[in-house]
Amino acid sequence: PVENGQLPDPANWGVADVVNYFKATGFEEQATAFQDQQEIDGKSLLLMTRNDVLTGLSIKLGPALKIYEYHVKPLQTQHLKSNAS
Amino acid sequence: PVENGQLPDPANWGVADVVNYFKATGFEEQATAFQDQQEIDGKSLLLMTRNDVLTGLSIKLGPALKIYEYHVKPLQTQHLKSNAS
Amino acid sequence: PVENGQLPDPANWGVADVVNYFKATGFEEQATAFQDQQEIDGKSLLLMTRNDVLTGLSIKLGPALKIYEYHVKPLQTQHLKSNAS
Amino acid sequence: PVENGQLPDPANWGVADVVNYFKATGFEEQATAFQDQQEIDGKSLLLMTRNDVLTGLSIKLGPALKIYEYHVKPLQTQHLKSNAS
Amino acid sequence: PVENGQLPDPANWGVADVVNYFKATGFEEQATAFQDQQEIDGKSLLLMTRNDVLTGLSIKLGPALKIYEYHVKPLQTQHLKSNAS
Repeated sequence: PVENGQLPDPANWGVADVVNYFKATGFEEQATAFQDQQEIDGKSLLLMTRNDVLTGLSIKLGPALKIYEYHVKPLQTQHLKSNAS
Repeated sequence: PVENGQLPDPANWGVADVVNYFKATGFEEQATAFQDQQEIDGKSLLLMTRNDVLTGLSIKLGPALKIYEYHVKPLQTQHLKSNAS
Repeated sequence: PVENGQLPDPANWGVADVVNYFKATGFEEQATAFQDQQEIDGKSLLLMTRNDVLTGLSIKLGPALKIYEYHVKPLQTQHLKSNAS
Repeated sequence: PVENGQLPDPANWGVADVVNYFKATGFEEQATAFQDQQEIDGKSLLLMTRNDVLTGLSIKLGPALKIYEYHVKPLQTQHLKSNAS
Repeated sequence: PVENGQLPDPANWGVADVVNYFKATGFEEQATAFQDQQEIDGKSLLLMTRNDVLTGLSIKLGPALKIYEYHVKPLQTQHLKSNAS
């Protein structure tokens, strides 16, 4: 779902789309945690705080820190901007 | 307990009413967590924070995020408004 | 220890007094958690935050929310007022 | 290590000194938690927050609340004062 | 990686570099927690909060408090300064 170097908007993603996004961004091993354990779809992804990502997904702390900082947070920021304009 | 498109006030709900509300709003699988595990009646529901919903009910993170954001928070906001006027 | 409709001051309560207070206010089932598991006397009760009551006593979330909001918090507020005057 | 009614400065205490301090102040049963489980020396003691004392030592909540409020916090306050003058 | 008494910048450290740093600074026993359990590389280390260090690594509280205060925090501060100038 990434096009033109711009971040996609996960608002309408299903759980499988969330998993695929994290697989495509280099977190092959962690991506399934969004599906099997916690059923995170796009709307849920947009509601996750740093703490939710670090403690709610049973992902190792090292990758979880990067998943939040480099992916979840930018996706949320981009979504907010898109919906404000 | 939903009528006329307006949110109901859970102040006097028993635990079974809370369960029925979440069943009716599409969280069939999660609804029983309010009853069996934690005995949440309407008064307790009005006192729950985001963190209580996410970590206190043993509901998967994905649905829990939506239960709080789209249901518990609006019910609490509506209750506060009703009792302020 | 409740007299004249006024809230008592738990400052000098032993653990058994804490248990009896919560039994008398309708939390028969939860009251023993203050004793057996955590040894909460009156001084400790006055130091408890909302989070301590919800996560530190292994009480179900529904009753715990009401124990804090309708009992622990008012007792603490009353104690502070009594000692400020 | 208590002299002249003044609080001591734990900055250079070893783990055994921390244990002895809490034994001497009436927490015989809880004192060993500082040693066996968590290796808290004086420098670590000065860095502990309320939450660390309540959730990091596996001490019962009742005594933990008093250990923090009546001992750890005053020792930290005293240390800060001594090092500011 | 320590030279001239100045703190190094962990931005490009691999997990093994993080482990070696904590071994070299006196936390031989705790250093492996960064590797085996949580896969903390330099970028992750720069994103860790006090709470992450204390609760996310399964390190004893005493050493964890010192690892954060005397090492992780100064490394982060130094990194921020280096990248601001």
